[in-house]
Amino acid sequence: MDRIGFIGLGIMGRPMCLNLLKAGFAVTAWNRTAAKIAEVTAAGADAASSPEQVASRSDVIIIMVSDSPDVQEVILGERGVIRGAQSGSVVIDMSTISPAVTRDIALALAENGVDMLDAPVSGGDTGAINATLAIMVGGDNTVFERCLPILQAMGKAITHVGTNGMGQTVKLCNQILVSVTNMAVCEAVTFARASGVNPRIMIEATKDGAAGSWQLANLGAKMVNRDFAPGFMIDLQQKDLKLALEAARDLLVATPALSLVHQLFVSNQAHGEGKEGTQALLKSIERLAGKQSQRW
Amino acid sequence: MDRIGFIGLGIMGRPMCLNLLKAGFAVTAWNRTAAKIAEVTAAGADAASSPEQVASRSDVIIIMVSDSPDVQEVILGERGVIRGAQSGSVVIDMSTISPAVTRDIALALAENGVDMLDAPVSGGDTGAINATLAIMVGGDNTVFERCLPILQAMGKAITHVGTNGMGQTVKLCNQILVSVTNMAVCEAVTFARASGVNPRIMIEATKDGAAGSWQLANLGAKMVNRDFAPGFMIDLQQKDLKLALEAARDLLVATPALSLVHQLFVSNQAHGEGKEGTQALLKSIERLAGKQSQRW
Repeated sequence: MDRIGFIGLGIMGRPMCLNLLKAGFAVTAWNRTAAKIAEVTAAGADAASSPEQVASRSDVIIIMVSDSPDVQEVILGERGVIRGAQSGSVVIDMSTISPAVTRDIALALAENGVDMLDAPVSGGDTGAINATLAIMVGGDNTVFERCLPILQAMGKAITHVGTNGMGQTVKLCNQILVSVTNMAVCEAVTFARASGVNPRIMIEATKDGAAGSWQLANLGAKMVNRDFAPGFMIDLQQKDLKLALEAARDLLVATPALSLVHQLFVSNQAHGEGKEGTQALLKSIERLAGKQSQRW
Repeated sequence: MDRIGFIGLGIMGRPMCLNLLKAGFAVTAWNRTAAKIAEVTAAGADAASSPEQVASRSDVIIIMVSDSPDVQEVILGERGVIRGAQSGSVVIDMSTISPAVTRDIALALAENGVDMLDAPVSGGDTGAINATLAIMVGGDNTVFERCLPILQAMGKAITHVGTNGMGQTVKLCNQILVSVTNMAVCEAVTFARASGVNPRIMIEATKDGAAGSWQLANLGAKMVNRDFAPGFMIDLQQKDLKLALEAARDLLVATPALSLVHQLFVSNQAHGEGKEGTQALLKSIERLAGKQSQRW
């Protein structure tokens, strides 16, 4: 059984690491803020003093941090994974970062005989806790198959989508889909209310046909209840949309609807709603409409 | 059993009328182009010489024509329904038209003791043929209950959503939802292809989570196969989006994403794609991207 290294014990990484321990894997963990290691060592993990040390003690090193520069730092930095990783080991980056940065890192690791998978997830902290994350994996197929039992300890719908970076690309596609579909729901709910229609009945009448979506059935219901507590926070979604917009722009692919949603989320942030759930996009649409949006 | 009048025997009206005959209703039919009456008289309907004559022979008069002015003409025009309709009869307008025009017509009919339901449908010609249309009904609840057996001969998910005009409002919400969600799919598919990712695999990896929608599963698959044959034609969708944008503007509700989709469909129409299915919105996104969109 592969020895696992785990780097990044935030809101997502901590429960994922605990699920690996529960599945019987030996885990060596590291986190930038040392205090967070206690919970996983209490559950049986060993603590390491640096990403380098994690790598030197592991066959497969999992990374779950915030953004592209964080991944570059823990892998390529001074006491990074690349200094300790043995030839034949695998790095699995489960953070959501730039596809282009991912490809660069994979090349640097390959020069040291280390394989890489990019394996970003969706499903939020609930999915992390319940080991039901969807995982989109880019990289070599034999490496994917070797690591599949490890990924299965953390997620459910695990799809090998292509070569290095393509897991990140599919994750960004996921974020384009959720964001623009969310926008569809916000405009429909606001138009319904301004017309005097109960938005709950509108959703009920439309959700099982061609208009139906997860966003309509789930975030739509939260909008109707004016429940803006985060499933997924606007501030975090904005990081992902920035990645998607930059990647699309670099490819010379125009994404006008995605760009529009990103700008309206900026307006949410301007109104102090960055820590609310993405369904608070509704408030930006309502502010455009003024009092008319409050009719129902 | 109510005697039914049926006005408008186009691609939707003809099969709906045939389903009423099949359910055992006596039907008197009229169509602007007389030649189209033959198919329903062959199935047992009587032909009338005007909407007025249809109304004089019917308890419930169903209208299925193209747009607001057509409905105004057949109901309020010189030989319109309002001249022949008896007090206590009901007009059910199943066309998709303006909610405001609907309310005006309902008032005019009410002054003559005639009730009205607005009952626009979704589900396309397939739904019309198979009697599986979704029907969104606005109007008085007792009138709705009286007419329910008639509607059940033509559709399945039949929802009473509010007062006169609100059926039309919910139908326009449905069109906002399908259009903007379609846009989400087009941007994700184009971004995936330009990134070198097989869009079929992208859809497979995302469709069962928060990114999932009817549009992704169904129109996404058609986009991947480059099948642009109409389920629902862009030219027809544009009529509905124009209604939605006008209704929203009159309410002072800004719908920037809907507006964007409408403009990109204008570009489709400029390229001679108005008779293609709404999934051809993909081509407008691809034209924005140029050759980059053809990578995969």
